[in-house]
Amino acid sequence: MRILAILLALSTLFALAISSENSSSPHLLPRPLIFESHQLKSVDNDNVNVHCTSWRFAAETNNLAPWKTIPTECADYVKNYLTGKGYVVDLERVSEESMVYASSFGFAGDGKDIWIFDIDETLLSNLPYYLEHGCGLEAFDHFKFDKWVEKGVAPAIAPSLKLYQKVKDLGYKIVLLTGRREIHRAVTVENLLNTGFRNWDELILRSSDDERKTATVYKSEKREEMVKEGYRIRGNSGDQWSDLLGFAMSERSFKLPNPMYYIP
Amino acid sequence: MRILAILLALSTLFALAISSENSSSPHLLPRPLIFESHQLKSVDNDNVNVHCTSWRFAAETNNLAPWKTIPTECADYVKNYLTGKGYVVDLERVSEESMVYASSFGFAGDGKDIWIFDIDETLLSNLPYYLEHGCGLEAFDHFKFDKWVEKGVAPAIAPSLKLYQKVKDLGYKIVLLTGRREIHRAVTVENLLNTGFRNWDELILRSSDDERKTATVYKSEKREEMVKEGYRIRGNSGDQWSDLLGFAMSERSFKLPNPMYYIP
Repeated sequence: MRILAILLALSTLFALAISSENSSSPHLLPRPLIFESHQLKSVDNDNVNVHCTSWRFAAETNNLAPWKTIPTECADYVKNYLTGKGYVVDLERVSEESMVYASSFGFAGDGKDIWIFDIDETLLSNLPYYLEHGCGLEAFDHFKFDKWVEKGVAPAIAPSLKLYQKVKDLGYKIVLLTGRREIHRAVTVENLLNTGFRNWDELILRSSDDERKTATVYKSEKREEMVKEGYRIRGNSGDQWSDLLGFAMSERSFKLPNPMYYIP
Repeated sequence: MRILAILLALSTLFALAISSENSSSPHLLPRPLIFESHQLKSVDNDNVNVHCTSWRFAAETNNLAPWKTIPTECADYVKNYLTGKGYVVDLERVSEESMVYASSFGFAGDGKDIWIFDIDETLLSNLPYYLEHGCGLEAFDHFKFDKWVEKGVAPAIAPSLKLYQKVKDLGYKIVLLTGRREIHRAVTVENLLNTGFRNWDELILRSSDDERKTATVYKSEKREEMVKEGYRIRGNSGDQWSDLLGFAMSERSFKLPNPMYYIP
């Protein structure tokens, strides 16, 4: 059955050329797949796991069409990922890779090198909220989420706090660029300070003028202002591609994991 | 032990605010994690699997520093992914999502809408070669790889062929933009035709002038020429971020999976 499944997978994957010139080639078929199939014992046969890992890959690489909720059949998968080792390990890795990159610059000393951080699911975690709302299975509810934000108790994402401090120590200007609205400035500042984030250079929240813009446009416009003022955006950390793509993009962007929601 | 591991993971993940205002909040700790830990039975305890999945996530989201070989401990993981269901499912999904997006345009009818495809690991698969060379565990060997390319027997990636045909039928101009060199034009054309790719509008290979450029710069420059000629780059399919990022970027980019190698 396993060999059959592998052959089936192969025939789905490859449309092989059956031309007269090629058919004699010993390399035409990926031989080791067939003759060494005993090496594949650890292949995961859990269809849900394969399906949901693929969905997560597609979400994290920005291949999906805009989505409002996670696939129903992936509810347990996403929850297990977030509360198991996977999410922690991913967060630690992106922090470490960002630190390696951040350390690679010799600064001109003109104070014009910027690192941008998003806030939600980048510096602060709303996981306590989402665990009570299906981890993405429930459609986003602005009213309920605002109530949570207003508590000001979102925990820091520890690997991001470590990166934040490192980037600060290295001499970058730190800009916090968030989709949170100006009405939440005070509680956001309090939440950040209480969880260890200090001495940022600028905190940009969404003004009423920005409310109808997509996050991609709003954040790109804010980055463009920085570039026009002569700043160099060296790094950008965000859990949404709308934090990272658009125009006036950072020299390097770092995508934190977030399989719970999508913001255009 | 499982509860201990979860608590340990939590303490790594979250640096909780222990301010006097917040400590009385019932939402300070992500409670469901602790009180509902019986729901976490399916959490994967295989450290190698978690580690290598995390590495793959980081590679696919472009979070890693430039790398030459896959981590040694992930050799079996990567091979199993490529020869198991994971790779096929991922390739099918990106093809399907691309088709949904491609179908969303009502064309002006001026023939100026372009879809760009990379070739290796996007339209054609070199998996037969890489299976004989450690699937990324061996450092890339130009000489050996050229020998493989010159056989002209790389199979088509079937989901990409389906996308190619759909995009062609919809009326996009198809541009193939590859890092392969001009000396391989004839064998590349033969390989593409033999595997079902027909009637592209342009095939751009790397000229001697482009040989010292990174793929990101070379491909961006070629895209910029298209934009200057009045074309609209609607979609871009590639397995490397250097196919997709840089300047003159496509309106939407689709990242095909490739955990075997990295091209800057």
